[in-house]
Amino acid sequence: MNYCSHCGSTVVSRIPPGDSRPRYICEECGTIHYQNPRVVTGCLVTFEDRVLLAQRAIAPRQGFWTLPAGFLENGETAAAGAARETLEEACAEVNILELYTMFSLPHINQIYCFFRAELTRPDFAAGTESLDVRLVTEAEIPWDQLAFPVVSDTLRFYFSDRQTGQFRARALDVIRPPRPPKA
Amino acid sequence: MNYCSHCGSTVVSRIPPGDSRPRYICEECGTIHYQNPRVVTGCLVTFEDRVLLAQRAIAPRQGFWTLPAGFLENGETAAAGAARETLEEACAEVNILELYTMFSLPHINQIYCFFRAELTRPDFAAGTESLDVRLVTEAEIPWDQLAFPVVSDTLRFYFSDRQTGQFRARALDVIRPPRPPKA
Repeated sequence: MNYCSHCGSTVVSRIPPGDSRPRYICEECGTIHYQNPRVVTGCLVTFEDRVLLAQRAIAPRQGFWTLPAGFLENGETAAAGAARETLEEACAEVNILELYTMFSLPHINQIYCFFRAELTRPDFAAGTESLDVRLVTEAEIPWDQLAFPVVSDTLRFYFSDRQTGQFRARALDVIRPPRPPKA
Repeated sequence: MNYCSHCGSTVVSRIPPGDSRPRYICEECGTIHYQNPRVVTGCLVTFEDRVLLAQRAIAPRQGFWTLPAGFLENGETAAAGAARETLEEACAEVNILELYTMFSLPHINQIYCFFRAELTRPDFAAGTESLDVRLVTEAEIPWDQLAFPVVSDTLRFYFSDRQTGQFRARALDVIRPPRPPKA
């Protein structure tokens, strides 16, 4: 951040009075520009004994398989965002059941939420951000071709919980070293 | 948003190619300035049969009682943010147990998370954003003096679940009409 989005003056980075962290501050108009984590919301969609996976058409992890998910938008509930992303990426209309996993990924400033959801009917197709979409059984999960640890963790919890029929919502932390600076 | 925080040029609001929502776009440097909900994270802190409440020293809802909570920071897990806010607002060191409630508040672009937590010892005090901090029993909860519906809902769930000893994480939506524009 170089300029104040309110008045266009240059910003400085310093700790405001009463705060403990450096913020981008406009000394011209006084605006403090807070920067906060973003929320990614998605669905673990099931139909009978199968789970809906989408193959990513875009970076990062193009060609790898994921659960439909994307950034939560302003004015949207986490559940509505999860359903919207599932419609966009897998052309699938779902019935949201319950929050299932919430991951903190502090190294990339994200909170990732997955809801359990059911397909209202077995209609789906690859959206513009997907190469392919499939309903797969547990035995068919391509464990070494999954896009992100949050996806494999959520699937592992699901298949474990499914044995008892008790699905418990979980919050987990994914701790990684910071990304290296781009060359 | 009036100016590009990257290059300082004026921004326009329009729907980027492949998108479905208007975004602030810099036509000079091409930056798309996404705006997304923020996460508030906090703790439902217990000690023996009592719950920790803090009386707000600041707007909004100054003088009303709340659970310690505040905006999640970049580089922080949701649980660590909840513990930090509890330390800042109630000078209390806590042991985080589990995610308990997650509320979507789309009218104010917030996701609110509360974790269940335990006081490691009954030491607490009002931080700079609190007028008072107290450990109260269920009978002592000032239900008509609670700051926010997410606080009263979380407390109601807690006292209900406590009867069975089974604490279930829940995701809920708080749907309100949009705020009226400021005069």
